Amino acid sequence: MLGRGAAARALGALRGLRGGAPPARSLGLSRRLLSFEKVFDKDHSLPKPCWSKDMRLLFDQFMKKCEDGSWILLPSYEYISTQRRQDVSPFIHAYFPTASELVNKEKLSQAQLFTRSFEDGLGFEYVMFYNEAEKRIVCVFQGGPHLQGMPGFFHGGATATMIDSTVGMNAIVSGGIVMTANLNINFKRPIPLCSTVLINSQLDKMEGRKLFVSCNVQSVDEKILYTEATSLFIVLDAKKKV
Amino acid sequence: MLGRGAAARALGALRGLRGGAPPARSLGLSRRLLSFEKVFDKDHSLPKPCWSKDMRLLFDQFMKKCEDGSWILLPSYEYISTQRRQDVSPFIHAYFPTASELVNKEKLSQAQLFTRSFEDGLGFEYVMFYNEAEKRIVCVFQGGPHLQGMPGFFHGGATATMIDSTVGMNAIVSGGIVMTANLNINFKRPIPLCSTVLINSQLDKMEGRKLFVSCNVQSVDEKILYTEATSLFIVLDAKKKV
Repeated sequence: MLGRGAAARALGALRGLRGGAPPARSLGLSRRLLSFEKVFDKDHSLPKPCWSKDMRLLFDQFMKKCEDGSWILLPSYEYISTQRRQDVSPFIHAYFPTASELVNKEKLSQAQLFTRSFEDGLGFEYVMFYNEAEKRIVCVFQGGPHLQGMPGFFHGGATATMIDSTVGMNAIVSGGIVMTANLNINFKRPIPLCSTVLINSQLDKMEGRKLFVSCNVQSVDEKILYTEATSLFIVLDAKKKV
Repeated sequence: MLGRGAAARALGALRGLRGGAPPARSLGLSRRLLSFEKVFDKDHSLPKPCWSKDMRLLFDQFMKKCEDGSWILLPSYEYISTQRRQDVSPFIHAYFPTASELVNKEKLSQAQLFTRSFEDGLGFEYVMFYNEAEKRIVCVFQGGPHLQGMPGFFHGGATATMIDSTVGMNAIVSGGIVMTANLNINFKRPIPLCSTVLINSQLDKMEGRKLFVSCNVQSVDEKILYTEATSLFIVLDAKKKV
């Protein structure tokens, strides 16, 4: 398995990511969203004891693909919420001026990113890899026992959550600060609880401030197609109203 | 506020629910899915200290509507997973014969329903009310600080999860054991973290084993439309393959 050194190199590669497809104005924002300049205490994209054999194997395979720079490991830090809120609030305010007033300020100190709010191994374990040339993000996702819907299988909402996170990250690295406008999911087969799957996402099209991203969810051997989805994201502009 | 006595009467009313729209064969299953004959330790549909003022107020309003029998409080017990698995497994097996083989049996003892796997007040707090004549389910949903996506707002996946649960319950009470086939969500506005919202779902159409359910997510005063969604469910039949 590749260790922290290799992961750090992959992270370094992302720092050096050139602005081809992503517009320069949004690339800075993307970087800040990815928390490079932020205070953090844990990078969840690095292997943990709770990861399955499948998850570790796929992590290693993608880390090898990172060596020539074609793929990049996307770090996943625990953000300091207050700082992130300051980054994003001008964008929200431009579109929804009263939305922030409705946020319960007292509770914000307890805020946690939904997909990182579980104890290790019980909820969402995932790592994402980005291929800039192909505009793809692959998410290796291991769902824990607390994500149950129908007995023995993932809740559709848990699958939807990881799909939204993956296509959302694809939109972020391409467009900066974005909001999900539409998510259309076809559930083909139930996903067995605690299994590891691959979420393959692809930026299909950019039309002005609209980003179209599709994805599928497959078994690790890519023989079983569990789910397919399309999505639409809107790139937010702090100075421009809808 | 109405107490446990009133809630118990509402539950009693559901026991007496007559088979009009729901076919008799599936009604028994619906009841079992709703866990009437199961061992349980906690009904999450009853008020808790962590509920917001809005949530309690809406609970009381809907409990009043339950008094004439037009609305019914749907209980939300913690199922014994092993028993639920036995109920559902013949249905899954009929459609996906190999799916159960892929379930990690060792981890199943830790399985928890996704929407009830958080500590009180941190994740999903919700209660659903059913109107049989109108084929509607209203879910009063209070999302906790661990459901954050964009800072200060719910994660799209958390909203998708409660939508799937609500439209799914509408499909269950109408058709028995069902699977989500499609979920198409339009996110109109970000939902402030820790707010209480109403999810209004409606069974639009039944075509053979297909159930079409739509819903919207609104603020408690119904002045803000946050999200709209449509869904398709398939009623499973243990003896019939797709």
